[in-house]
Amino acid sequence: MDKDKIRQALIKMLGKEKVLSEELDLMYYSYDSSFLTKLEPVSPLAVVFPRSTEEVQNIASFAFENNIDIVPRGAGTGETGGCIALKGGIVLDLSTWDEIVEIDAPNMQVIVRPGVIHAQLNQELAKYNLFFPPDPGSSQMCTIGGMVANNASGLRAVKYGCTEQYILGLEVVLPNGEVITTGGVKARCIKNVSGLNLTKLMVGSEGVLGIVTRIRLRCWPKPKARGIAMAVFDNLDEAPAAVLDIYQAGILPSGIEILDSSAIDAVNQFKPEINLPQAEAILLFEVDGNPPSVEYEGSVIKEVVGKRARSVEWATEPRRMAELWEGRSITATAAARVRADASRVFAGEDISVPLSRVADTLRAIRALGDKYGIKVVNYGHIGDGNVHTAPVINPENPEEVKKVMDMVHEIHLLAIAMEGSTTGEHGVGAVRRQYAELEHGRAAQLMRDIKRVFDPRGTMNPGKLI
Amino acid sequence: MDKDKIRQALIKMLGKEKVLSEELDLMYYSYDSSFLTKLEPVSPLAVVFPRSTEEVQNIASFAFENNIDIVPRGAGTGETGGCIALKGGIVLDLSTWDEIVEIDAPNMQVIVRPGVIHAQLNQELAKYNLFFPPDPGSSQMCTIGGMVANNASGLRAVKYGCTEQYILGLEVVLPNGEVITTGGVKARCIKNVSGLNLTKLMVGSEGVLGIVTRIRLRCWPKPKARGIAMAVFDNLDEAPAAVLDIYQAGILPSGIEILDSSAIDAVNQFKPEINLPQAEAILLFEVDGNPPSVEYEGSVIKEVVGKRARSVEWATEPRRMAELWEGRSITATAAARVRADASRVFAGEDISVPLSRVADTLRAIRALGDKYGIKVVNYGHIGDGNVHTAPVINPENPEEVKKVMDMVHEIHLLAIAMEGSTTGEHGVGAVRRQYAELEHGRAAQLMRDIKRVFDPRGTMNPGKLI
Repeated sequence: MDKDKIRQALIKMLGKEKVLSEELDLMYYSYDSSFLTKLEPVSPLAVVFPRSTEEVQNIASFAFENNIDIVPRGAGTGETGGCIALKGGIVLDLSTWDEIVEIDAPNMQVIVRPGVIHAQLNQELAKYNLFFPPDPGSSQMCTIGGMVANNASGLRAVKYGCTEQYILGLEVVLPNGEVITTGGVKARCIKNVSGLNLTKLMVGSEGVLGIVTRIRLRCWPKPKARGIAMAVFDNLDEAPAAVLDIYQAGILPSGIEILDSSAIDAVNQFKPEINLPQAEAILLFEVDGNPPSVEYEGSVIKEVVGKRARSVEWATEPRRMAELWEGRSITATAAARVRADASRVFAGEDISVPLSRVADTLRAIRALGDKYGIKVVNYGHIGDGNVHTAPVINPENPEEVKKVMDMVHEIHLLAIAMEGSTTGEHGVGAVRRQYAELEHGRAAQLMRDIKRVFDPRGTMNPGKLI
Repeated sequence: MDKDKIRQALIKMLGKEKVLSEELDLMYYSYDSSFLTKLEPVSPLAVVFPRSTEEVQNIASFAFENNIDIVPRGAGTGETGGCIALKGGIVLDLSTWDEIVEIDAPNMQVIVRPGVIHAQLNQELAKYNLFFPPDPGSSQMCTIGGMVANNASGLRAVKYGCTEQYILGLEVVLPNGEVITTGGVKARCIKNVSGLNLTKLMVGSEGVLGIVTRIRLRCWPKPKARGIAMAVFDNLDEAPAAVLDIYQAGILPSGIEILDSSAIDAVNQFKPEINLPQAEAILLFEVDGNPPSVEYEGSVIKEVVGKRARSVEWATEPRRMAELWEGRSITATAAARVRADASRVFAGEDISVPLSRVADTLRAIRALGDKYGIKVVNYGHIGDGNVHTAPVINPENPEEVKKVMDMVHEIHLLAIAMEGSTTGEHGVGAVRRQYAELEHGRAAQLMRDIKRVFDPRGTMNPGKLI
């Protein structure tokens, strides 16, 4: 079937206002936030904006019958090319389908359509003293559908885990247009061990098994208080050791973030008035809970971490907390500005290693930066070993591009050698597929066999994950 | 292949001491804790005690080549017939393979073989100030392998979730004898979103996809303090309402248990000196955390729940906590003794409903008891809507058996009608398979298709789950 016929069929099916087919419009959909799509953008042959399960089913059936690739997309904040139609195909932009169907406060859950924005959902839930704990950096932009596809997490995974922990059930349109409901067709219970856990299989499947059209999410009581500690270290190895001490003291902070010396420099260069202390590492601990608990944990952190750190400051006053956190919150932006003629690329940016290997990993990444002559800024979620590396290069310079791609490959291999993973939260997408065998061995084949059950024609977001 | 040849081959493979083939010994393996196996016990054709992955692989290969069913078994504490070889077959008793391979405290995880007992594991972890939070009632007997197979939970799921939340990776022997590792072949990181989540697909799969031979578990810092509140209600509807009030107050207790009037009567009849107050319901709240947090949450529970309850008692002193908890801890035993000539049967014992439907559900179950003339005792994990129903009958009386089976079927249908599930934590096994279509609709077929990927010959624990 040729492009024009496909576009006409889609317009006939959905109406003109729900179909994009102008090349300029389509170009926007050749990008997500990955470096890959900056290097090799590919436009889809059409973009559609379905707003009902039936519309998604119709699109899927049509694509299935005509052997056309389909690719679901949320807000496009992903860093792996996961929402790109690599060989052309129809992109389903679900970001406008942003209905909060029901907040069922008595049953501690909420039902949403895939396009709801994370921050928006938590704003609504707050009215009921509830929240959805995972906290990705892209909270203001990313969609719940995208979070489900990527099993997103972010700053609070130490205590609250990843998205999957909160997903009670999903409505999924299969590649052939059929629809299933996981977690029980009509269920709205919290606990359910009936049947194979298709819900958890879908979460993190990056759109290669089907299109999520409805999400039933568990919510938690919103904690009443919060506190932040900033600890400054002269010795990098003391930072993960201090994290472990805190766990040993019986405390599970909601987040523990690290800025190594490269990130401290980047922040100070970008915004000198923040004036972070020169150090090998800065740790930020966030604890939440009821007010006496937060107060107590703050005093323990000051005492326990104080034995290893040059200094520890503890704050519960909102303005001071914001100041302490500011360095961390602008790190990603600051990293992009460490070289005037260059920008940060999202590649090799998300490895995960055991806590005991974090210090060695950071040193090894710095050494790789030196080896390739590439400026690298390191920060991340040290509480669960999730390291964010920001290589900064001039993407117009082919030599630098070649070097950074080689370096990123070494970072990925480093992660595996450190008993970690190439991706802690951003996902595999198109950019980390090559490591499937190395990470999963024989299980990688099993994953492909499972995909075939869902997607016998291989038209569902092909070229991703496995 | 005839029985004797199979047994001889197994003895040749494993040695005589690792194979049972005497009918008397095998009879023991015709039971778990389900009512089904009391009614229709089926002996396996052999029981083997593998103690290495290679031995499990050899058994699986042999069974696969000769088309013999294989069934993994832990401690046999399940209530669904999940570990029974329904048509004969080889049972792999994994309970003697109980090695704690490694406690990796710096990385907050532990690696175990499937036969490790839950309570034993937590005893070892306590030495490192760590714990594995799920807390099944059978803690002293059940194995971690069994917990993984059933995605077990128990008293603490309100705050800490189910087993799946803690499983980082599994070694699994497939039905054909191949071995895979989920969660990364060599990984020991906490966060990992690479590939399809086979780990979570395996958890709760009740041994129908493969045999779990190694488990990598995430541990949590062990809380330093604990407190218990007992609240007495004159009105059943006030009990779930009080639970919701507590969530609204920002508190997530580690457990919230209910005894309705039937359970209160059973306890008082069994052990009069406990002398629980006569009431429509008793709730027990357990909170844990740091000492000031526990103290604070106790005072909030007293105040908030006090508005709905006849009385609330709060305790942090170990002896008094044990006294308050005793009624709950002997409920299961007490339920079995409410009729001199009868005993409790494990059937329809584990439905899960939304919190908002708990009171109606308990009333409906009592009405069913009246309709069938069967004594029924209700208790359970009200915090997550998981209701445990104990029908008490004389299992030697065919008429009572017929009646209880009819009643149990109605209880299962009730659960689905209440937007719940037939099983919150005990699993499907052989006894709740008939509800797969009703609970999962089209998804049930997809589950069977996935099973076929793992188990093309249908020899892996057949007749269970789906």
